[in-house]
Amino acid sequence: MCESGGEARDEVQLTHQQLCLEEVSQAVTCPSCGAISIFIGTTRDSFEGKKVVQLEYEAYAPMAQSEIRKICKEIRTRWPTVRHICVYHRLGVVPVTEASVIIGISSPHRRDSLEAVQFCIDTLKASVPIWKKEVYQGDEPCWKENQECPWTGSRAAS
Amino acid sequence: MCESGGEARDEVQLTHQQLCLEEVSQAVTCPSCGAISIFIGTTRDSFEGKKVVQLEYEAYAPMAQSEIRKICKEIRTRWPTVRHICVYHRLGVVPVTEASVIIGISSPHRRDSLEAVQFCIDTLKASVPIWKKEVYQGDEPCWKENQECPWTGSRAAS
Repeated sequence: MCESGGEARDEVQLTHQQLCLEEVSQAVTCPSCGAISIFIGTTRDSFEGKKVVQLEYEAYAPMAQSEIRKICKEIRTRWPTVRHICVYHRLGVVPVTEASVIIGISSPHRRDSLEAVQFCIDTLKASVPIWKKEVYQGDEPCWKENQECPWTGSRAAS
Repeated sequence: MCESGGEARDEVQLTHQQLCLEEVSQAVTCPSCGAISIFIGTTRDSFEGKKVVQLEYEAYAPMAQSEIRKICKEIRTRWPTVRHICVYHRLGVVPVTEASVIIGISSPHRRDSLEAVQFCIDTLKASVPIWKKEVYQGDEPCWKENQECPWTGSRAAS
């Protein structure tokens, strides 16, 4: 947790470990903020009617981190009162119900962090090069580049 | 955590205990969902230039709970794919940086839970009768009914 007067922080991490929600929340907690908005993306058990057993994520970490830092910068331009931003993305196997991404954003008033967290996950899905392998029950696994990136031509927001 | 096929749950709690983020997150986690959106309202250290030492909340719990349950019902009408909703509100003294309210909402795709959590906190602030006492440094404490309720005539969203 920060002191009120300290620097605003962008904390970005790609890790093969399980993500810790409490850690993200602590990273953005600040005495000058009345609002923390959090988004958690989890592996769900189906995709277009097929039973999903697990997802597996791969990325060239320095590039993915740099893209996420660009999003943080853009958030600070659009919502100048945003205080701390924390984005954790898991790599490797992520079983059903576990988190692949947790985003936490704090701001003095709620509107800013609520809007910024939505922008952050939308933009991350659309622009950060992270590959996803979907492992189905009784079907071939399938590798996909970030499914909403414009160059992949695929659809459903998850 | 629920089974995919089970009932959708509305979990509403008013408590004098410290709120547990992990508990809210677990309450809405579900294998059929790829998204959990969370909002945390915390006590911040200032209000209109005055140094806030702590907030104190009071409510007639059955009425406040019933109003929050109405909001859950409305969310299910507006976002039918929303799966679980969990709203914890703390009563009594809430020191700076601690949470007075945590809302968690899960859905298969992210858009629904993101929009629903925003609606939930906006509507809660506007319609649920919870009184708030602001304790300032070197100034008289001040009781306010829910500051955005239309009948109170007060302003700033927090």
